[in-house]
Amino acid sequence: MPMKSMNDLFLHGLQDLYTAEKKILQSLPKMAKNVAADELKQALERHRDETQEQVKRLEQVFKMIGQSPKGIACKAIEGIIGEAQETMEEIEDEEVCDAAILADAQAVEHYEITRYGTLTSWAKELGYDDAAKLLHQTLEEEKRTDEMLTKLAKKRVNKSAVA
Amino acid sequence: MPMKSMNDLFLHGLQDLYTAEKKILQSLPKMAKNVAADELKQALERHRDETQEQVKRLEQVFKMIGQSPKGIACKAIEGIIGEAQETMEEIEDEEVCDAAILADAQAVEHYEITRYGTLTSWAKELGYDDAAKLLHQTLEEEKRTDEMLTKLAKKRVNKSAVA
Repeated sequence: MPMKSMNDLFLHGLQDLYTAEKKILQSLPKMAKNVAADELKQALERHRDETQEQVKRLEQVFKMIGQSPKGIACKAIEGIIGEAQETMEEIEDEEVCDAAILADAQAVEHYEITRYGTLTSWAKELGYDDAAKLLHQTLEEEKRTDEMLTKLAKKRVNKSAVA
Repeated sequence: MPMKSMNDLFLHGLQDLYTAEKKILQSLPKMAKNVAADELKQALERHRDETQEQVKRLEQVFKMIGQSPKGIACKAIEGIIGEAQETMEEIEDEEVCDAAILADAQAVEHYEITRYGTLTSWAKELGYDDAAKLLHQTLEEEKRTDEMLTKLAKKRVNKSAVA
């Protein structure tokens, strides 16, 4: 479908992110399963629950703009998660696998941060103030998740330095 | 090749990013060509020159760890840039196209920010202090580029609010 207006572009971005969130929802349990460190496993499981709420929030945004929730192909998240899956399969050592999964989970968060940031700004531009609030709420959650993963990554490095 | 150590994982990440940077180097001129706003066009062209230096910096890092510069498949950047290309082709309106290109350029920056952040931390962990410095230098550049794109995005929104 050709995009002619900011409204079309906003809807396109929403549909891209809807697919991305659903794909992330499927992949988080797989990542958690492959992780050895308890703290990281629990963090990924908690973020899985959070992601479920974020999907619902996107569905509310669709309704707010008079659209049915619908996804379109999201090559970006396919690529990021595809890479994560391949890396998990190629690593045998537990510690190394945890480091890789942490990095790949952060790559997922950064994709969400950039897209939620853009959509929040476009929603404001289009006068969808309630939608902007919901999108901003998720943006803040994603940023917190990324910070938490950074902390876990530093802990892992410190532990490995001691070992 | 199976990855058994943090050294293997670091090299794998370096090779992934080397492919990503080269792909970005090819796509920045295409994005700049499709942009209408002069300021954004110039920013993308400047970032193309910066990217060329970042590729050289990665080649130095390879040498520092006794490896030849080599890329591996990077599904993530293929996906992010593939999406950007599709969107550009689907948009007819100039203003809407600029908004989309800005957003996609930020998605590219966020991928680089997360990967350079991780590689800097792994380089320190492995005692590659000189490599860590070079990677950190690029990380800071990518963050500045992202901030500059955010400013341009805000300018565009303000202009569109006035129009």
